[in-house]
Amino acid sequence: MQNMCRIKMSRFGLVLFCSVTMFFLWANCVQAGDPSGAFTFTQSFEGLSTSGNFVWILVAAFLILFMQAGFMLLGGLVRSKNMLSYMAHCFMATTAGVFIFWLFGFAFMFGGSHLASGLDKGNPFIGYGGFMLLGDTYDVKTILLFTFMAVVATFIGSIIAGAVAERIKFSAFLIAGLLVYTFAYSFYGHWIWGEGWLAKLKLGVGVKDFAGSGVVHAIGGICAFMGAWALGPRIGKFNKDGSSNHIHGHNIAYVLIGTVVLAFGWLAYDAGSTLAISELRSSIIAANTLLAGISGAVIVVLYTYWKSRKADIAEACNGALGGFVAVSAPCAFIAPWAAVIIGLVGGLLMCGSVWLVERKFRVDDPLGAVSVHGANGLWGLLAVGIFADGSYGGVSGLIVGSGQQFLAQLIAFATAIVWAGGLGFVIFFGLKHTIGIRVSEAEELDGLDMHIHGTQCYPADGRYMEDIDAVMRKHIRLGELVNQG
Amino acid sequence: MQNMCRIKMSRFGLVLFCSVTMFFLWANCVQAGDPSGAFTFTQSFEGLSTSGNFVWILVAAFLILFMQAGFMLLGGLVRSKNMLSYMAHCFMATTAGVFIFWLFGFAFMFGGSHLASGLDKGNPFIGYGGFMLLGDTYDVKTILLFTFMAVVATFIGSIIAGAVAERIKFSAFLIAGLLVYTFAYSFYGHWIWGEGWLAKLKLGVGVKDFAGSGVVHAIGGICAFMGAWALGPRIGKFNKDGSSNHIHGHNIAYVLIGTVVLAFGWLAYDAGSTLAISELRSSIIAANTLLAGISGAVIVVLYTYWKSRKADIAEACNGALGGFVAVSAPCAFIAPWAAVIIGLVGGLLMCGSVWLVERKFRVDDPLGAVSVHGANGLWGLLAVGIFADGSYGGVSGLIVGSGQQFLAQLIAFATAIVWAGGLGFVIFFGLKHTIGIRVSEAEELDGLDMHIHGTQCYPADGRYMEDIDAVMRKHIRLGELVNQG
Amino acid sequence: MQNMCRIKMSRFGLVLFCSVTMFFLWANCVQAGDPSGAFTFTQSFEGLSTSGNFVWILVAAFLILFMQAGFMLLGGLVRSKNMLSYMAHCFMATTAGVFIFWLFGFAFMFGGSHLASGLDKGNPFIGYGGFMLLGDTYDVKTILLFTFMAVVATFIGSIIAGAVAERIKFSAFLIAGLLVYTFAYSFYGHWIWGEGWLAKLKLGVGVKDFAGSGVVHAIGGICAFMGAWALGPRIGKFNKDGSSNHIHGHNIAYVLIGTVVLAFGWLAYDAGSTLAISELRSSIIAANTLLAGISGAVIVVLYTYWKSRKADIAEACNGALGGFVAVSAPCAFIAPWAAVIIGLVGGLLMCGSVWLVERKFRVDDPLGAVSVHGANGLWGLLAVGIFADGSYGGVSGLIVGSGQQFLAQLIAFATAIVWAGGLGFVIFFGLKHTIGIRVSEAEELDGLDMHIHGTQCYPADGRYMEDIDAVMRKHIRLGELVNQG
Repeated sequence: MQNMCRIKMSRFGLVLFCSVTMFFLWANCVQAGDPSGAFTFTQSFEGLSTSGNFVWILVAAFLILFMQAGFMLLGGLVRSKNMLSYMAHCFMATTAGVFIFWLFGFAFMFGGSHLASGLDKGNPFIGYGGFMLLGDTYDVKTILLFTFMAVVATFIGSIIAGAVAERIKFSAFLIAGLLVYTFAYSFYGHWIWGEGWLAKLKLGVGVKDFAGSGVVHAIGGICAFMGAWALGPRIGKFNKDGSSNHIHGHNIAYVLIGTVVLAFGWLAYDAGSTLAISELRSSIIAANTLLAGISGAVIVVLYTYWKSRKADIAEACNGALGGFVAVSAPCAFIAPWAAVIIGLVGGLLMCGSVWLVERKFRVDDPLGAVSVHGANGLWGLLAVGIFADGSYGGVSGLIVGSGQQFLAQLIAFATAIVWAGGLGFVIFFGLKHTIGIRVSEAEELDGLDMHIHGTQCYPADGRYMEDIDAVMRKHIRLGELVNQG
Repeated sequence: MQNMCRIKMSRFGLVLFCSVTMFFLWANCVQAGDPSGAFTFTQSFEGLSTSGNFVWILVAAFLILFMQAGFMLLGGLVRSKNMLSYMAHCFMATTAGVFIFWLFGFAFMFGGSHLASGLDKGNPFIGYGGFMLLGDTYDVKTILLFTFMAVVATFIGSIIAGAVAERIKFSAFLIAGLLVYTFAYSFYGHWIWGEGWLAKLKLGVGVKDFAGSGVVHAIGGICAFMGAWALGPRIGKFNKDGSSNHIHGHNIAYVLIGTVVLAFGWLAYDAGSTLAISELRSSIIAANTLLAGISGAVIVVLYTYWKSRKADIAEACNGALGGFVAVSAPCAFIAPWAAVIIGLVGGLLMCGSVWLVERKFRVDDPLGAVSVHGANGLWGLLAVGIFADGSYGGVSGLIVGSGQQFLAQLIAFATAIVWAGGLGFVIFFGLKHTIGIRVSEAEELDGLDMHIHGTQCYPADGRYMEDIDAVMRKHIRLGELVNQG
Repeated sequence: MQNMCRIKMSRFGLVLFCSVTMFFLWANCVQAGDPSGAFTFTQSFEGLSTSGNFVWILVAAFLILFMQAGFMLLGGLVRSKNMLSYMAHCFMATTAGVFIFWLFGFAFMFGGSHLASGLDKGNPFIGYGGFMLLGDTYDVKTILLFTFMAVVATFIGSIIAGAVAERIKFSAFLIAGLLVYTFAYSFYGHWIWGEGWLAKLKLGVGVKDFAGSGVVHAIGGICAFMGAWALGPRIGKFNKDGSSNHIHGHNIAYVLIGTVVLAFGWLAYDAGSTLAISELRSSIIAANTLLAGISGAVIVVLYTYWKSRKADIAEACNGALGGFVAVSAPCAFIAPWAAVIIGLVGGLLMCGSVWLVERKFRVDDPLGAVSVHGANGLWGLLAVGIFADGSYGGVSGLIVGSGQQFLAQLIAFATAIVWAGGLGFVIFFGLKHTIGIRVSEAEELDGLDMHIHGTQCYPADGRYMEDIDAVMRKHIRLGELVNQG
């Protein structure tokens, strides 16, 4: 019976394969793009400038993809029995995430933006051109934009993974992720990056979110909050008297390495978001990003030392990430001193938000994703309106006496909360009351890795067991002596 | 006695040092290259384009070198007692590998290709110019090519390391590696990349292997198969009744991080293989690489879930790598939709090949190197002939109705199997019957790390032992109670 | 009482925040730089060349920042109970290090160099322009230089961290670091890189240190020696009879991965130090760096095998690093064959220096930082004067019959020893006799992580304890049987 089923599935697969191939074959014939780049590149000044842009944007895209290693390593903050589960979420956010983005995310986000060939269908609210990079979008410039944006899109899932870790069902994560990628992220992204209504606001120069404080981090962090809230806390997180327990991770070294990986990619992400080699502002962007991140880290080291006489380095890593998130939107428009202030505030804001989420909202967020990405993403949106000094792109904030940009940013701020909050609420609570989003208590106590992925992250192999054995034998002898004595 | 021996060796070293220095001094005087780049660079359009190429190729080379961290981390699939041994193989593949490539690999591979200064000696079967980068090859363009190709060359050893892990003698690995680098790899590479007979076939545009599906992965994977076959399976892999056991690795987190590291480098490797900044096709290459990799991962997650109700993430990592390998050759010549199909097939092919190698051939390949690199490398060679759509470099495959390119690729396919299979067989079985290639049973049971490298990979240090101790003490007390009760 | 104190501190913080903001606001108004790059970039050949430089230097800077992950991973050589402490030192070297460099390090080092806008105040001994990137230094070119140099500056603290690991107080590390960054590093850096007196020596072309063998590694390694000397050896390192013990690390896999990360960044660092895209010599620099590193590794593998019949891979990693350090200064001025020789000597020098430091000076250097960075940094300075072949930048060493450059390098060599040795001595012994630099014996035995950072690096979480438990239960039963039998 099962065999027959498999054979049928194989046949079905073959037919599907042939149909799909033929579909693409036909679709591909409708070509108006420039897939070889021969028409785009010219033996001229413009040609060289264009090819320089390709190098710059592609290298940035490679480094952004690598940031997923950083996200995965932050899993050092979960218990080892759930490490593989957390990493699997990041892995699916990257693989299935890019797949979804290729299928329709890119079309929703950049259709109608007219930023490159084939992206001409859409309106200020939603795009609908460029599905699967067929037809006119089979073009070197369009696919350059796709490559950069596809790797950026993978973040949203990894951000959410941090808040829902250690208790979510794999299927629920995948479905929620699909919905968040397709709607929450792509729509809001279209409104700001895809020349949508927020970008066209008649306040200041329209909403500015240079490298995703809002589009990526605020949206991700807010959805993450909804996910963590819908799931409820991990077993053992809160006590009956209302107090909460600190659940230790399993590898702080991973967290530090992960933070450096993220820092590495973040500089490239922010600087690469100029999307043009001729934008020399890239150096200031890189410096600002670096300064905000390290300021966030330094202030949290000082803060934790002041509070508990211990320099909490894992918390300081989150402080650095908070600084990076906060500076992502304003990094291009501000001076280095402002980046330092944004980072210092970002670090403290992260600490305050962790306290708020855990103690007041009683929501369990294992990696602090809500505070790092959500709170600081929102802060970054506002920071544009405060610290932009008018020296780049005509973006002027409160410090140079202009209030319009701040208003625009405030609208983006409110929109993020309403849109991602509302949609996140519907998605996670909707799934909760239909397919269910939480693993069974037994699975949670055992650890998700064995049940969902069929293996421990760190299988207890020979060597390791032998070490335990060796110590054991020593003790057994001691025990015997004790018993005999 | 031993002291005298050492003094003599010191003297010998001094004489050797002086002789070598004088030799290079003399060789270096014969200069016709452009070591400073002053003649190569011109204050013109061409000059800028050239300097752009340098940036592009060098950055790609750096990222390719970093891929060795990815290869090493895949060692999470071996047992911890052999982790250092596996990593040491990758380490030697990189260090001794570059040394060999500098000594003669580069000359064998690119001599006679006329690709840069000093590379003019050679014929369609073998090159013999550019040894040790002396004379005319002391030139900025030649050494640019060397740098890129030297880091690529390091892969072949790391691929083999995955299949021969946990049981090969260090000396055997080094000697086999030396022979594979010098002959199997450099010759086949010369035939395709060094303007050899395969590149000059009068079928289509001659054999195309854009970024090494054939040269690197097929050759490496086939040699790896011969190595694993000659070695025989690890103790405990196969049962007497013919069934096989799954030997658990020790750290799946490493495998995931390693896969991201490899993905990061792979995009740069494929896109960088344009070797020219003006080839705007680089964006499509990067997108194709990304899409093939993630498709390979997604299909394997689905497949393993369908088969066993567990989403096997380590296997999915291999699926991603299979996709990357398969798309390496065709990445420049195909459309994104074809990359997705190549990746989907690549992922399933990897699973099928693992089954074939283990169950049918009964060859023990701890990391699945034969399936990831060998099977998918061969698939990649053919995929050029199938999916190339004629939009770049005049390469046209079956889907646009041209069969010639497919024939050329088929010849490269067969040549890889015969050449690498034959040579790999001779090398590994030759060594087996002379110096021996397998460690003793006692060493294998103990783990190779202690015996060959003098230390465990994870020495059981204070902290760790104390943890065990703490649990132990608790139990001893329990034990006492039990005994007393 | 404490609450009141906190409220007061909050108010104090608010006032401080406003004052600081106003200060920057005022400072920022004094603008003569080119923060948007509009005046620097021109639609011309020069414009494109400039934008190419930005890409090249920024990408190199990102990769250099990532090298901190490599430094952190070398902590595999300390015991797990002190891993977090070691990593925290690297973390502070990066975060607080960049902060210090922004505050005044950059001004001390590059003031008066006239390398970019706003860097015009200074003399051959010290610079004093460019504090906090205010005023004229708010300029795309100046901040490009800052970004590159800020990430390079973070190395000095991480180098020292390796030698003082497992026993230094956190506060002592921070204060010593502050002093080393501000004085030892910035001053010596000014003398060579900031157009100071060593750069202007009338011998050869003045002292040349292309990528920091002297400025970074020699200075760092010498200060590290002073720190390790002042601290005294770790408990258990030396026996009463004068012999020493090998204290095992906890994770050699980290060491290997860390070495690859460092290699990755090192190639970018050296090649990127051209600071100009039009310097095609970058390819030879990258090849030289690669060849020196792998040669250092290969020779140490051979050496350790010859000495003990074990191929010591952790030592070989240090050999590779020694090669990288040694070639940093000469990489631009030499031919590939010379890079191989410099690397071979570097690897052996590292081994000899380890022996000297441990056995003769009886100084305990857990990571071998003194030998890798100090000894090889000094060797690199001299190697310029020996192997420079006159093909680039007019730098000619002994091998082409010129002795002047060698004399200049010798002066830099001696200056490094006197300056960093003297200052390092004063700093570490000064702190030792005032605030104290060493943790208590109890803290050292317990491990620094719990006491200083409030957590273990690898908290013993559920999974892990359960593994121990499982083995235990098996044994308890055995124990019972034994007791019953």
